[in-house]
Order: sequence, then C-alpha cells, then structure tokens
Amino acid sequence: MNFEFSFKELPAVMCGPRVERRRVLVGGSAFWGTMDDDGRLRLDDGRVLDAEGATYLPPVNPSKIIAVHISYSSRSFETRNKARPTETPTYFTKPATALNGHKGQILKPADCKYLNYEGEYAVVISRTCRNVTPDEAWDCIEGFCPALDMGLQDFRDTDQGSMLRVKGADTLLPIGPGIVRGVNLFEQTLRTYVNGLVVQEAHIGEETIWGPHYVIADIARHITLLPGDVILMGTPCHSRSVDPGQVVECEITGLGRVSGTVTAIDAPRAAALGVGHAPTDSPEVRRVALGFDERVPDRFKDNLRQAKEATR
Amino acid sequence: MNFEFSFKELPAVMCGPRVERRRVLVGGSAFWGTMDDDGRLRLDDGRVLDAEGATYLPPVNPSKIIAVHISYSSRSFETRNKARPTETPTYFTKPATALNGHKGQILKPADCKYLNYEGEYAVVISRTCRNVTPDEAWDCIEGFCPALDMGLQDFRDTDQGSMLRVKGADTLLPIGPGIVRGVNLFEQTLRTYVNGLVVQEAHIGEETIWGPHYVIADIARHITLLPGDVILMGTPCHSRSVDPGQVVECEITGLGRVSGTVTAIDAPRAAALGVGHAPTDSPEVRRVALGFDERVPDRFKDNLRQAKEATR
Amino acid sequence: MNFEFSFKELPAVMCGPRVERRRVLVGGSAFWGTMDDDGRLRLDDGRVLDAEGATYLPPVNPSKIIAVHISYSSRSFETRNKARPTETPTYFTKPATALNGHKGQILKPADCKYLNYEGEYAVVISRTCRNVTPDEAWDCIEGFCPALDMGLQDFRDTDQGSMLRVKGADTLLPIGPGIVRGVNLFEQTLRTYVNGLVVQEAHIGEETIWGPHYVIADIARHITLLPGDVILMGTPCHSRSVDPGQVVECEITGLGRVSGTVTAIDAPRAAALGVGHAPTDSPEVRRVALGFDERVPDRFKDNLRQAKEATR
Amino acid sequence: MNFEFSFKELPAVMCGPRVERRRVLVGGSAFWGTMDDDGRLRLDDGRVLDAEGATYLPPVNPSKIIAVHISYSSRSFETRNKARPTETPTYFTKPATALNGHKGQILKPADCKYLNYEGEYAVVISRTCRNVTPDEAWDCIEGFCPALDMGLQDFRDTDQGSMLRVKGADTLLPIGPGIVRGVNLFEQTLRTYVNGLVVQEAHIGEETIWGPHYVIADIARHITLLPGDVILMGTPCHSRSVDPGQVVECEITGLGRVSGTVTAIDAPRAAALGVGHAPTDSPEVRRVALGFDERVPDRFKDNLRQAKEATR
Repeated sequence: MNFEFSFKELPAVMCGPRVERRRVLVGGSAFWGTMDDDGRLRLDDGRVLDAEGATYLPPVNPSKIIAVHISYSSRSFETRNKARPTETPTYFTKPATALNGHKGQILKPADCKYLNYEGEYAVVISRTCRNVTPDEAWDCIEGFCPALDMGLQDFRDTDQGSMLRVKGADTLLPIGPGIVRGVNLFEQTLRTYVNGLVVQEAHIGEETIWGPHYVIADIARHITLLPGDVILMGTPCHSRSVDPGQVVECEITGLGRVSGTVTAIDAPRAAALGVGHAPTDSPEVRRVALGFDERVPDRFKDNLRQAKEATR
Repeated sequence: MNFEFSFKELPAVMCGPRVERRRVLVGGSAFWGTMDDDGRLRLDDGRVLDAEGATYLPPVNPSKIIAVHISYSSRSFETRNKARPTETPTYFTKPATALNGHKGQILKPADCKYLNYEGEYAVVISRTCRNVTPDEAWDCIEGFCPALDMGLQDFRDTDQGSMLRVKGADTLLPIGPGIVRGVNLFEQTLRTYVNGLVVQEAHIGEETIWGPHYVIADIARHITLLPGDVILMGTPCHSRSVDPGQVVECEITGLGRVSGTVTAIDAPRAAALGVGHAPTDSPEVRRVALGFDERVPDRFKDNLRQAKEATR
Repeated sequence: MNFEFSFKELPAVMCGPRVERRRVLVGGSAFWGTMDDDGRLRLDDGRVLDAEGATYLPPVNPSKIIAVHISYSSRSFETRNKARPTETPTYFTKPATALNGHKGQILKPADCKYLNYEGEYAVVISRTCRNVTPDEAWDCIEGFCPALDMGLQDFRDTDQGSMLRVKGADTLLPIGPGIVRGVNLFEQTLRTYVNGLVVQEAHIGEETIWGPHYVIADIARHITLLPGDVILMGTPCHSRSVDPGQVVECEITGLGRVSGTVTAIDAPRAAALGVGHAPTDSPEVRRVALGFDERVPDRFKDNLRQAKEATR
Repeated sequence: MNFEFSFKELPAVMCGPRVERRRVLVGGSAFWGTMDDDGRLRLDDGRVLDAEGATYLPPVNPSKIIAVHISYSSRSFETRNKARPTETPTYFTKPATALNGHKGQILKPADCKYLNYEGEYAVVISRTCRNVTPDEAWDCIEGFCPALDMGLQDFRDTDQGSMLRVKGADTLLPIGPGIVRGVNLFEQTLRTYVNGLVVQEAHIGEETIWGPHYVIADIARHITLLPGDVILMGTPCHSRSVDPGQVVECEITGLGRVSGTVTAIDAPRAAALGVGHAPTDSPEVRRVALGFDERVPDRFKDNLRQAKEATR
C-alpha cells in the first residue's frame, strides 16, 4: 500500500461484520432495507424483496459531492506518465442533481459525442467534520458505495477546469446499489464493465495514492463536511467514451456493483438558440475522451472494442 | 358556496391555463415534467413518457404536513349530525415519512383491521407565510394535488387525539399524480373509488366549510408555513376501511386521480414484545372506522360492499 | 428505576467520556464546536469562544419532532392521580418551525394568557430506524439535549387533542445549548427554573415511566425515524404559566441548561378578522394551565409565586 | 447594454414595487421579515426591528451554488486585455457551507496571505428549471441579493481550475442582507468597499456581458436548477486581497449592502502534519491575487491603499 498516512489498526468502518443498506422505491414510497446472506433485501418493515428486481434510489442524500481528480497510480501513469499526478490531491465538485441510482439511465444529449465512464468508490460522511487529522477522519465515515463518475467530455474546453458541464449534468453519478460498512476497502478490487466486459481494473490497496482518511483531512482543513456528504475517490486507467444502449457498471468487490444504461436525449432547446458553449470535438477533448491507449493494458481496449461492436 | 371569507375575484392560482407538473423516477433519478394536452408527460429534458406507465414520486417535499379534521358539510353531518363540526377548523399533523406517490402501496400491518380511506385535496405552499389575512393567503399557494389521508383506525384509542399512529404511519399519504395550477377548485368534484367504484363524492364548492385561504390564514396566525409545506383539506362523508388487494383512488376533477393499493405487511417486531399500544377493536375504534351508515347515501355503501365482495 | 424494558449493560450513548457539541452563529455563519473542560466552546476551526456570550442555534435539524404526553410519575399523579397515566405511552407532534435555541425569545401573543413551561430532555436520532426492539433502539440515539416544551394553553379547547396550536407555534421549543453523549441519563436530575427559582424537579431514573429505548421502539413500529429526528420525553409535575419578561430554564444535570425569555408580540392580524379559534379562558383551559396545586410540592408553588412577584 | 439576449419588456421580477425580504436570528429562532419604507425590518409576526442592529442569516438555502467566472467587461479587460473573456460564459461552484450572512466574519487561516474580495450580485431560483430559453428563464428568478465571492488565492495552484479550496472554504460567501424583487437590475451600480472606501465600481447595465436569463438558460441546458439555488454573476475589475480587521462590503444600488469582517483563524491542524496542498506564494498566485494594476482605475487602487494603511 502506497497511500499516504497508513493506519495503525483497521478502522471500525472497515471491520466486520459486513452490513449493506439499500434504499428502494416501492410503489411511490422510499424504504430502507438490509441485504441478507441470501442476497435478498429485507426492508426494515419486514418485507423481503428480490434484490434483482427492485427499483433503486441513491443510498445517499448529500449537501455536497466532492471528487478527487486522480488517486490511482495507473490513471496517473496513463494521463501524466508518472505514478503520482501531483504532490497532493486536487478536487472538483458535482451537484446533487447529478445523483442516479442503481440501474439508472445515464443521459447523453444528441449533440454530444463523448460520455466517458470512470469507475470509482464513494465515501459517505457520518458526522460533521472540520479540522480533523487523517487518523480522526476514519470516525467520520458512514460507509462506502460503488459509483460511476460519468463525464460529458465534449465540454472539456469550457469551464476552465471546474468541469461543471463535463461532470455536473443530470444523471452523471450512478451510485449504489447500497452503502456498505465492515469491509476492508484496501483489500478490494475495482472493476468497470461495458456490456459485461471488464474495461477498468485496479486493486484498491495497491493503486491508491491517497486514502479516504487523507482526503477527508485535506478537504476538512477549510470546508466543513456534513453528515451525508459524498466524496468520490477517483478512477484507475482507461476511462473511455460509451454510447446509447451500452450498459456501464462499476463493481467494487465486497461492496457491490452499480449499473447504468446510456440513454439518448434531445439536445437542449437553448442550444438551438446558440446559448452557451457548444459541445466541441477539439484535440483537447479527444485527448481526454479517447485517452492514451499506449499506456493501458490491451485487454481493456480489446474488451471495450468488443463491447462496442456488439452494440452496433 | 358556504365556505368562510369568499374572494372578490378568482385568485391567480385558480385562473387558467391549467398547468400540471409531475415528478417521476426514471431508472434511478428523479425528473420533473409537464402534462401535455394528449395526456403524455413531457419531462423538462425533452423526453416524452407514457404517463400511464410512469413510476411516480410524491410531487411535494414538505417540512410539515397539516390536516384539517373536518371541512366538508357531509362529513360533519355524518359524524356530528350537523352541518358544521365546530365553530372554527381544527387540525392534526402527519410526518413527511407518511408520503406516498401515485400507484403506491398503502401498508396495512397484520395486527390491524381498520385502514380507512379519506379522499382529499392538498394545498401546497409556495412561499414563507406567517400572519397573513385570508385574502393574502391565496398568493402563498403553489397548487393543488389529489390526496388520500389514510388512517389506521385500530389506534384510535391511543395518542389522546393527536392521531399520530392513526394517521402518521409510513405510506399513509398517497399524493399526486401531479401538482396543478389554473383550475377553479370550487367548481370541482371530489370522488373516492375502491376498486373503481365510487365510495365518496362531493362538490367542493358546495360542501366546503372553510376554504384553503381561510385555513392558511388560521394556521399562519402562530405557525410559519414554509415553501413546499402541505395542507390536507379534509374529506366528505363515508370514510371506511379497506383491505389488502383493494385499490383506493381519489379523483378531484380538473386535478387528477391518485391511487394506491392496500398491501399487507407483518406486525412489527416490537409488538410481539408487548411494546406500545396494541391495535384494538373497541367500540370507539369501530365507531370511527365503520362510520354512521344511516347518514350516508346508499350508493356509496352499495359500491363499497360490491368492491369488497369482488376482492374476496 | 421503574421504566419499561431496563437494559442489561449501560448503552454506549450513555458511557463516557462526556462529549457536548454546540452550534452557534458567529457573525452570519453557523459553526459547530465542542465544550472543553474549562467551560469554553472550541469551534472545530480552532477558535475558542466564551460559551456564556455565544449566540446559540438549535443543535438539531429534525424532519420530525414527536413528544410523549406523559412519562413522569409525578406528572401522571398530578394530572391523573395515579402513577401511570395510561397503559402505554401516547404522543403528539411539534413542527420544526417551533425550534428555538438557547437564550431564545419565547413568543406570547397579546391575546393569549397561558403560556406553560414543561422542562424535558430530548433524544436525537442518529440513524434511520424502523421496526426495532427496545434493546436495538439504543444504537439509534445520537445524544440528549435539555429542552422546554412550551405550550399556549389558551388553545386547549381546539384541535381535538392534537395540540397543534397549543404546542406548535413558532419558538415554543427551546433546545440546547448542546447535544450530549456519554452521560448516564438515568442518574440525572431535571430542574426547571423561573427567574432562577426551581419550579419543577425530578430524578430521571426514579420518575421515568418509559425510557427512550422503549419510546423509540414504540414509535418505530409504524413510523420511520430519520437521522436528526427529535423525541421529547415528557415533563414532571408542576407545568405552569409564565409571563413576558420571565426567564424559563430547563437543566438536566450532566447535559446542561437551556433558557428562554418570554416575549410579548401582537395578536395576529387574522385574529382581528375573526379567523380561527380565539384563545379562550375556559374551565378546561384553566384546569391544564393552572394544574392541580394540591398534588404538587409546596416549594415549587412558593418559588413560582416568588418569581412572578419579582417580575411585576 | 451589451449582454446577450436582451428582453422585449421588463421581466416581472424587475418591475416594482420593490420588496425586500430578510432573515434574522432573534434569540435562537430564525424569522423572516420585510423592510419598510423607513428602513425598519417588520418581522412577519408583527415585531419591528432596528435593521441596523439585527443578527442576519443568509436569505437563501440553496442545494447548489454556481458562479460565473467573468461576466463584466472591466474584469475581462483587466485579466484578459479584451472586453469578453471567452465566447461563452464559464462556471465554477461553491458548497453551501461557504454561506455567510450580512455582518459575518470572513475567515482567513493563519497560513494564507491572499484573501481576495469580489463584489457580485446573486440570482435566486424560484422554481424547478431545466431546458428553458433565456426568455423563459426570467420566470424562474425569485429575486436578487448583494454578495461577496471571497477567494483564498493562496490555493490558486491546486485543484486544476475547480477552485474548490480558493472559493469553497467556510464563510467565503457573504450574501444579503435581503433578497429583493421589483428592481431593474440593469439600471443599478455595483460597488465594493474596503473600510468604507470604494475599490470596485461598475454600472451593471453597461458592463454585463451575459445577463442572468442567459446564464440560467445556459446552465439549465444540462443541469436542473431547484428552488433556492443560487447563481453568482461575476465581479468587475479590481479584485484584491484584504487582511484581518478590514471590513469588506458589496453594495448593489436598489438591492442593498452586505458586509463582512476579515477575521484571522489558526492554520488547520492537518496542515501541520503536511496533509494537502500548502498555501503558496507563487507567481501565478500573485498574478491573480494582486491583479493587473495597469488596467484598473487609479481611484480604486488609491482607496484600497488608503484603507489598508488605516488598518495597520
């Protein structure tokens, strides 16, 4: 493990037993439930649901969502040709309107070409947190969720680095299916799938540059984190663009697997009036959207090509 | 019209054109849309949904829900044998966790016998509102929704009149499908259906004792109403009990029709330990749950009997 | 201790060390801090405040507030002439707009005579909670706060027992100064003061009829409690009326002391138009507002009389 | 006026009469009130406050805060040497924890040198808004507020353009004192003061590049704006750094004047452990923090120098 500030003993949030809580919509009302050992969802009111057929809501309700730009060595190597992208982590934000549940539709406007996936895990804050050390930060974590930090890279050329339009559009944050405690995150493997084929893979303990405790302590130097706030922990190499009809999934072993289906929508009405930065297909956009294939394992590229051919 | 403080000219919220906004879950994310003239739901992002097949969320997100006990002359006559139940309106509350969307499941615990329907309309507050007159109160209304103020009458004997357990359990407030502006409420008719048969009916203009403007001005004498807060406006005669499998609907002409299906769940675990007031089948419970049949039109009773026979 | 369902070992929320968190407004922004051993408030950002001079906000942000009618034997004896008011606890609600912070103004409208104090402690919910047993309920408690459940008894004759107007008006729930963990509630004493003189006093362990674990398990039989929700645990004997200028405080040893000053405001404008139930001075109102002096210790009555004389 | 998409007739939100609503804390509870013609704050409950001596809360409660990088020609000229910074506006975000009320403390950590003011006006969203045209966008505006978009420029070198740490720290968004309707924004003048001396000034109608209707329509192409959301509209030239003890104000004629006092706090504890990007005094940081004096009117620079000398 090469992440900053390793811990002395395993923090409580990563000690068993594993508990997974999910939130579902059953006919008009939201309900919380706990996954049982047989893969069924036991609602708190006693009803037992087939977890496969349930209608999922995001298991979080954050007042803010903060995302690490890069915290995986393979991603840093792909984009920067070095194991560490910057001396210290850097961040951007996503609005809460971007939240999406498991099995959601990930919207791709008709005038956009590059909707990139980024498989990640999310950290959910359990208590008000400001001015803590990394050691103390572990006590401020409610649990972890698989997540997809989707991005409309066609807007790479605007917003001067804030990526509001790239990362902030509605539906661009599938998260779930549940929130999990009691799993040692650093022993888990992250995998992103397109149409069932692996297109990203990383062992979290081996690749993580900055752990969640470090990131929380860093952000909370100046910003108060509130219960329910969400931090997205970055993606490994091979973030690439997907098209309508394709199913994207992020699995974190031990946590679960969240999926979304890319869905076409019309271009916005204001776009036809010339309002705002138009999606562009510039070299910089393509650089990020298409990535650096020479620094990425062949099997990810082969799988993505295969998945895309199957969709056509 | 015999409601208090009639208005000089039709308030803006009741003047056309009619606009109906609905909130739906599409694959993990919530979206707002507007109903078009052909009965389709046009989401703001341009997608058009079959309104019939959509998954509905409550179109409101209140910080509080206040309900009038009785504001229909037929209900007052049924329960009190007079056209006006009290000199002035009286109120109780429901927690926000009771909210349910159109086509929801209305939960009936296994140890309860009497889950009564009450077809109503809801008023949604548009702006912070305190110390207003009835005339001013019209400007604080965002719109109106059909609603069902369901009640577990088995708990009638507890809570000393607050009805927390009678009216406050999860799912006991189906509301929607949308929120509507631009309709003259006092020209509309309320109808409640069980399995498609009319079991309550009232012309709102003829039966209303206290209009929403009066009720808002009354409550806001001492309590600040916030944007999104919901007021339930009472039910006409013939609130009766329904059973699992039965479909209950409230239609307000001009506004729409909200439905819910009564669904059985287990008795709570704490009940088995003897915690809390047990559901009872006392004379007082039966008095309210079963109502006063002699003061109710025969067709409602006939229809309910027919609906119940069909379910068995 | 005679409360229901006593526990096997002291629940974690009542085990030390004691931690008290307060929320204050410093010049336009809200900040959380922790009380240190010297009675100073250390804000999370490192600033140290004189706790005495701080501007307090309520330390809670609930989606619902539920209150026990009676859970102290002395209150039951005073009002019912028996040690237990009912077989099982009963509840009512207060809207969140009633919240008030430490050192708040408790508003008394000009047309009301009887604003009664009720010293209580509040329980704050830490996690989503539904269908739990009393044993499990302890894990759903974030902490405890002193509170004053004030009531405008002039509205006793309306609302048919829900007490919406009695208990729900703006400012009628002073709570704080902080939220406390790590204190054994059942070894504490509750005291209410008017102008510094004790007017209510009860040893919580000796007088409590139903503990918070029982009450949570009871409510959560049918109603989902959410993180931040507040439960008010009832008051001991000698709830009485106070007047503008008087300072009311509730102290729970180990938790702290919350205060409020009764402050006169005008009668609402709608009242002048005859809207709504007018405050009344009926026998029932006086029965509750003035209480049963013969069943209350003399020192409370003497102190209250002395406090009132000093204000005139 | 050179802002995009001018309107045909004055939008309702800019037509009189002027209404200003403020939110204040009075002894532990929040209250809304309306400013009267004599400069007093009339609370909704009838109390009248001296507006000068009140304790202000932010008059907004947004789920997201989006800010335009540059929308004033003088700022574009200062930083880019041209009248228009980019073809279309670009945006970043601030978390809601950055909100501050009128007369707040603006926190400057001990390890930071450059806390820059930016006088702005904010637009508050009144209704759910997605996929609208600029013409339609006017109907989605609740009102306008003076605001200060403060920034810790010491963090300019990190976060790759998102400015999370520059703009997102606690207290960096003083806003208020009220929210105003009924004023023609394009006839107003923005002025920023340090210790009472003007350091920024711009006629909004003459300098605005993109109006709020354009900006709303632009953002709402892909992101749903919710009631209460806040958009900050950019600052004119001469954003500069201020020091502890200095009072910063932004006045928008017709809207009001919001102030904050720069207040020193300790460096965060995690900084001492080497966690996170340290504040830097790099050429890029100084470039932004100190600005381009040669493209700024002398009187602003003279006034700032004078104000700073008075503080020492």
